Amino acid sequence: MPAGTLPPKSTTDQDTSAPVSITSHGLDMDYTIRAANVEDCQDIARMVMELAEYEKVTDHVKVTQKDLEQDGFSKNPFFHGIIAEVPEQHRTKDGHTKIGYALYFFSYSSWKGRAVYMEDLYVMPEFRGKGIGKALMSKVAQLGMAAGCTQFNFTVLDWNKSSLDFYLSQGCTNVTADMGYQYMSCNGEALERLAQP
Amino acid sequence: MPAGTLPPKSTTDQDTSAPVSITSHGLDMDYTIRAANVEDCQDIARMVMELAEYEKVTDHVKVTQKDLEQDGFSKNPFFHGIIAEVPEQHRTKDGHTKIGYALYFFSYSSWKGRAVYMEDLYVMPEFRGKGIGKALMSKVAQLGMAAGCTQFNFTVLDWNKSSLDFYLSQGCTNVTADMGYQYMSCNGEALERLAQP
Repeated sequence: MPAGTLPPKSTTDQDTSAPVSITSHGLDMDYTIRAANVEDCQDIARMVMELAEYEKVTDHVKVTQKDLEQDGFSKNPFFHGIIAEVPEQHRTKDGHTKIGYALYFFSYSSWKGRAVYMEDLYVMPEFRGKGIGKALMSKVAQLGMAAGCTQFNFTVLDWNKSSLDFYLSQGCTNVTADMGYQYMSCNGEALERLAQP
Repeated sequence: MPAGTLPPKSTTDQDTSAPVSITSHGLDMDYTIRAANVEDCQDIARMVMELAEYEKVTDHVKVTQKDLEQDGFSKNPFFHGIIAEVPEQHRTKDGHTKIGYALYFFSYSSWKGRAVYMEDLYVMPEFRGKGIGKALMSKVAQLGMAAGCTQFNFTVLDWNKSSLDFYLSQGCTNVTADMGYQYMSCNGEALERLAQP
């Protein structure tokens, strides 16, 4: 069932793992935003690496195209994705027409309830400044609200001032700065030790 | 299917939304950790409020028992839960035997892949210091690893030094302090504006 037609919050049997079917067209450049499918994973993997290059952490990227195919497009996916695509005439010099993406998943706050978490938001450099990033972010917010979410959450790196300023200009609040939230993680051997009964 | 018997990462059709069936017994006090079910929501709602009182934010709690029933125990739940329970002879003066809980959900990192996020961890004050909190956290880590997760994530408030120190002592890293992650949120009217196409 398309997320845009999910039943309202009072219905208990909603299917938030179903694929979405959405199309948007930008005003100042022809582009489409649509639900990602398994055939997009090669381009998503490419753009994940481009984003990591921008964030200077390519050595942190362990996820492969195959991981994305398996983790995002199985029966109970760990994430959902949307893709920004331009027509053939606007393709990059390397031939790419899939030029942006966002990954998201549903989450929960025991205070506020249903939430949507945007894991990644990326637009290739030559396509920035055309509102495509904002359109991707807006679509994730729409999909979240359609599923009954009242919060849209994500993280941003503190040195990425231009992104941080953009998000603040959109009415987002920095919960780390305002309320002291520290994002914690456990992995590797520490996670193995933690999981010992 | 119990999460403890989820297929390995190479299987593409795993069911991470299935209820878990787990039992643990503490060494210094008899207690059980088991998967939460819909009948536990009254006690979870009570303990969510107790945790909010500790964190001094009771006015932030909008989630009701009914929300928890609907959001956690429908076909595609937004969260999973585990409960710590003591035998009748250890019940509180108010008659409670469900004395701790953790809520968690599955999430995703486009760098590291599958992750489990612990939304809440709580043990009633009179039952602290017996390893129950650690056992709950450990169980969430086990369930995450059984589902192929390589990261265990959560947030903690910076003024909550005793919890922060405990988590650091368990090998968790403060990603906000170490890498500059800022946790961002958009809700209310700002979210409605953001979702405008």
